[in-house]
Amino acid sequence: MRSTTSNCRNPNSEIRRRAARSVCFAAALGLGLFGLAAGAKAQGLPPLAKELNPAETALILVDFQYPFTNPDGANYHNIQKELQDKDLLNKTVDLVKKARSLGVLVVHITEGYTGDYREVDATNPGGFHRGQILRQAWKTGTRETSYYPPLAPGDGDKDLFLPPRIQTSAFGGTGLDQILRSKGIKNVAVGGFTTDVCDYATVTSAYDLGYHVYALKDAMASYFPEQGELMLKNTYPMWSKVLSNEQWLAMFGMSQKTER
Amino acid sequence: MRSTTSNCRNPNSEIRRRAARSVCFAAALGLGLFGLAAGAKAQGLPPLAKELNPAETALILVDFQYPFTNPDGANYHNIQKELQDKDLLNKTVDLVKKARSLGVLVVHITEGYTGDYREVDATNPGGFHRGQILRQAWKTGTRETSYYPPLAPGDGDKDLFLPPRIQTSAFGGTGLDQILRSKGIKNVAVGGFTTDVCDYATVTSAYDLGYHVYALKDAMASYFPEQGELMLKNTYPMWSKVLSNEQWLAMFGMSQKTER
Amino acid sequence: MRSTTSNCRNPNSEIRRRAARSVCFAAALGLGLFGLAAGAKAQGLPPLAKELNPAETALILVDFQYPFTNPDGANYHNIQKELQDKDLLNKTVDLVKKARSLGVLVVHITEGYTGDYREVDATNPGGFHRGQILRQAWKTGTRETSYYPPLAPGDGDKDLFLPPRIQTSAFGGTGLDQILRSKGIKNVAVGGFTTDVCDYATVTSAYDLGYHVYALKDAMASYFPEQGELMLKNTYPMWSKVLSNEQWLAMFGMSQKTER
Amino acid sequence: MRSTTSNCRNPNSEIRRRAARSVCFAAALGLGLFGLAAGAKAQGLPPLAKELNPAETALILVDFQYPFTNPDGANYHNIQKELQDKDLLNKTVDLVKKARSLGVLVVHITEGYTGDYREVDATNPGGFHRGQILRQAWKTGTRETSYYPPLAPGDGDKDLFLPPRIQTSAFGGTGLDQILRSKGIKNVAVGGFTTDVCDYATVTSAYDLGYHVYALKDAMASYFPEQGELMLKNTYPMWSKVLSNEQWLAMFGMSQKTER
Repeated sequence: MRSTTSNCRNPNSEIRRRAARSVCFAAALGLGLFGLAAGAKAQGLPPLAKELNPAETALILVDFQYPFTNPDGANYHNIQKELQDKDLLNKTVDLVKKARSLGVLVVHITEGYTGDYREVDATNPGGFHRGQILRQAWKTGTRETSYYPPLAPGDGDKDLFLPPRIQTSAFGGTGLDQILRSKGIKNVAVGGFTTDVCDYATVTSAYDLGYHVYALKDAMASYFPEQGELMLKNTYPMWSKVLSNEQWLAMFGMSQKTER
Repeated sequence: MRSTTSNCRNPNSEIRRRAARSVCFAAALGLGLFGLAAGAKAQGLPPLAKELNPAETALILVDFQYPFTNPDGANYHNIQKELQDKDLLNKTVDLVKKARSLGVLVVHITEGYTGDYREVDATNPGGFHRGQILRQAWKTGTRETSYYPPLAPGDGDKDLFLPPRIQTSAFGGTGLDQILRSKGIKNVAVGGFTTDVCDYATVTSAYDLGYHVYALKDAMASYFPEQGELMLKNTYPMWSKVLSNEQWLAMFGMSQKTER
Repeated sequence: MRSTTSNCRNPNSEIRRRAARSVCFAAALGLGLFGLAAGAKAQGLPPLAKELNPAETALILVDFQYPFTNPDGANYHNIQKELQDKDLLNKTVDLVKKARSLGVLVVHITEGYTGDYREVDATNPGGFHRGQILRQAWKTGTRETSYYPPLAPGDGDKDLFLPPRIQTSAFGGTGLDQILRSKGIKNVAVGGFTTDVCDYATVTSAYDLGYHVYALKDAMASYFPEQGELMLKNTYPMWSKVLSNEQWLAMFGMSQKTER
Repeated sequence: MRSTTSNCRNPNSEIRRRAARSVCFAAALGLGLFGLAAGAKAQGLPPLAKELNPAETALILVDFQYPFTNPDGANYHNIQKELQDKDLLNKTVDLVKKARSLGVLVVHITEGYTGDYREVDATNPGGFHRGQILRQAWKTGTRETSYYPPLAPGDGDKDLFLPPRIQTSAFGGTGLDQILRSKGIKNVAVGGFTTDVCDYATVTSAYDLGYHVYALKDAMASYFPEQGELMLKNTYPMWSKVLSNEQWLAMFGMSQKTER
C-alpha cells in the first residue's frame, strides 16, 4: 500500500502533499465504492413526476396553533398581512379537506413544552428555546398551544396528530420519518408556520431524508417576509418544488374534481 | 374517560368540539407528562457561557473544496467577493491552526458523489442533486472535489476527516452526531460554504440535536448574499450565537495567546 | 489515478482483481481519512470510570406498564418467576428513589398505540406490531397501558415521562437522544422489560449513539429466560457494563448513604 | 382543565393518584391524538406479502470481511462450523448473483477503524470497541478488513458499497436509511456476521425504521451458536420473517428461473 500512497504524493511541499493525498483518497473512494465511473459527458435527466399517488403522499401541517392562527396570538401580528393577503387559513382548511378526500395522509405537527420547560436546555445560546422560556410561551396544556379548530381531525378522519415537539424540523424527535416509511410515503407536501423558520427546517430535513418535497407557498407565511420571499425564490427550489395549493392538487387530477 | 372528554366538550358545534378536544389533549399531556406546571410568572434565564472548554468543542468545516476555494471552481464566482472582502480562506487557515492548538476537535465535512450518482435520486423534484447530475459535478475522485490544501490535516493532527456526504446537513448520513457524543462534544462551531445553504442546514440540525452552536460569520460565504445576510441577522440567532472568529477564539481565552 | 488502481491490481483473474481493489480502497480510505496509522503494537487502554457523575447520568425505565407489572397483565406470567425471584418491582422502586435523590435524571419510556393502530403497518412481516393488533393490546388510554403506580413521578420529581412509543428501542421516535444531549447526559442505565426484547434494542442503540451504558440486570426480566440469560452473559457486555442495582449505585458513592 | 384532571384523580392516596393520572394521560392522549378508538373486538389482519418487487427490495450484506471469511481471520474459528455446515460463503455468492440478476439492490456494509481508532471512545465500558483497540483489529487499510473477493461488485454491478462503519447496526452512521428511502426500498433482507451481534442490531433497527425485514438464516452465522439459535427462534420473528435463501428468492418467482 505504501506505493499507492506514494503515487499520489507531490513531494515538493508539505502542503501540496496533503492536497494531493486528498485527491488520491477521493479517487480511490470513488472507484472502490461504486465501481466504474460514468463517462464525462452530461447525462440526460429523467423527467419529474407530473402526477402524485395519494397513497404515497402526506401533507404535513406545521404549527397551526393559537399563536399563529388567532388574532390574539403572540405571533399573529408578524404574519397577519400574509395570512390576509393569501386568505391562508380558509384556503388551508379547503386544502386539507381535499387532501383527505383524495386519500392523502394528513399529518398535524405541533410545538409544545411542559410547564417548567424541563425537556429543553435553557443555557443553549441559540435564542429559540430561551425565547419561549422567557415569554413563558407555547406551554402544552394552555390555550396558547391549542390547535386551529377548523383543521382538527374529526372522528372519521385518518389523520396523524403526533405529540408536540420541541425541535424546529417536523421530523425532529417525533418518529414521523419512521411512520411515513412504514406507510410507504414517498412524497411530502409542507405548509404552515413559518416559511423562514420551521417550514424551512422541515423541508431541508425532508430532502436529506430522501423524500420528494412539495412546498406549498400559499399555505405558508413568513416571520421575516423579506427573508421568506428570498428563500422561496432561491433555496426552497433546491430541496422542493414550490407550488400553489391548486398546482399541487392538480397533480392528483384534482382540478377536475368538485369539492365536497 | 368519557367524562374527561365531556368536560372539554363545547357542544355547540362539531368544529368547536374538535378544537376543544385539542386543548384537552394538550392539557392532559402537559400534566401527565411532566407533573406540576411551573408558575405563570416569568422565570429568570440562566446566563450563557462566556467560556468554552476545548475538550467539549468541535469546529465543523463544511465543503472547503475546489468548487468554492479554487478560482477555477464552478461555484467560486458566486462567493468570490465575500471570500476576498473577508480574506476568508487565509483567516480560516489561521482559525483552524488555533483551534488545533487549543485542543478543539477539527472536523472536515465534504460533499461527493460516485461517478454515476447511483446513491442519489435523479427523479427528486428538489434541484440540488439534479443540478449536480446535470453538471456532472462534485464527483468523488476528481479534481473538483479535492480538499483545500492548506486546511488538510497533517500527520500529527487529530482532525476527523469523514467520508463525503450527499446530504445538505453536515450531520446527514455521516455518523458525525454519534462520534461527537462519544467524545463528549457539547459545542460546535460551523464555518464553510455556504451561509444560506449547507451551513444553515447544519446549524438548524445541530440545534435540533441539542448542541450549543456558534456560527462563524467570518468563515462563511453566501451563495445568495442578500439572503445570507438576512439569515445571519434574523434566523441564525435562533439556533446559534453568531460570532467573528476572534470572538469565538476569545471564549477559550485565546485572545491573549500568541499564534503558534 | 489510473496508476494508483493499477498498483493494487492482481491481473490473474477477475475475482482477484475485485478483492485486491477492495483492499486498495480500504487502505486509501484509512490513510486519507485519518492520517498516519498508529503503530502495530497493542496500545494500552484507558481505565474505565469507577465513579459516575449524577448530572451526566440518566436511568431509563422501559415499559413498567400493566401488562408486565400487574398479575392480571397479559405478559405477566412470562416474567413472573423472575419478578419474584429478584423482588424486581420493589427493588426498582427503591432504585428510582435513590436515583432521584442523587440527582440522576429518571426517564420513563412506555409503549402504546392508538385505538385503531393507524400509526403502525399491519402488513409488516415482523410479528411484533401484528401481534399487538391481533390481541388488540397496548392501546393508549386503556388500563392495559397504565403505568406502574409506585414508579409514577410525583409533583416534585423532575423525571421525564415521554409520550408512548411504537418502536422497540427506547430511543426510537421519542426524541430522547436529543433531550439527553441537551442535558449533557453521557451515561445511561437501563432497566425494564424485557431483557431479551426492548431492553436489548435500547442498549444496542444507546451504544451506537455513543453513550456509556449500564445494564441493570436486577431491574430486568426476560420474555425467554434462557435467551435472556445468554444475552446477559455473551452480548450485553459488548455494549454495556452489566451490573446489579447495588453495584451501579455504588458508582455514585451511594453504598455509604442511607436510604431516604 | 383542572376539572379534567380531577375526574381522573383517586384522592385516597398519593401513590394511587399518580397511577390514576397516568391512565388519564394515556386515555387523553389516545383520544386526542388519533380520534375515535376502534371497537374492542379483534380486527382481522391483512395478509402478508407472498411476492416481493425487486425494485423495492435491498439485500444487505453485513461484514463479509477477512476476519469472518478467511481461515486465517481472527473470528473465523468462532463461526467455522456453521460456515461449513451451511456452505455459507458459496451459497451467499450464489444468492448475490441471483439478487443482482433480479434487480435487487445489493448493499455491502463493512466495519473498519482508522489506525489510531480516533473516531471511537476507548473509555466506553461496553467491550466492543475496546476489544477492537486491544487487539488492534479491524483497521481500515489492512488485510484484516479486506472484503471477501467473490462478493465484491464488478464494474457492471450497481451495488452500493458504503464506507466502513463503527456502529453495530448497518444503518448506524452510514446514511443507508436515507439512500434506501430515496430509492423506494421497502423490503430489506439481511445476511452476514453475526446472527447474534451485528445482524440482530441491523434487523431490530430496520424494523424500528419501518422496513419489512427478511432474515436470511442460511446467510448468517453466530458468534455464540446457542444464543443465535434461540434468537432466530424467539425474537427474530418479532422483527422479521426468517427464511432460507431459497424461500426468499422464491418470493420473486425465482425458484422457476435457472441460474445465470
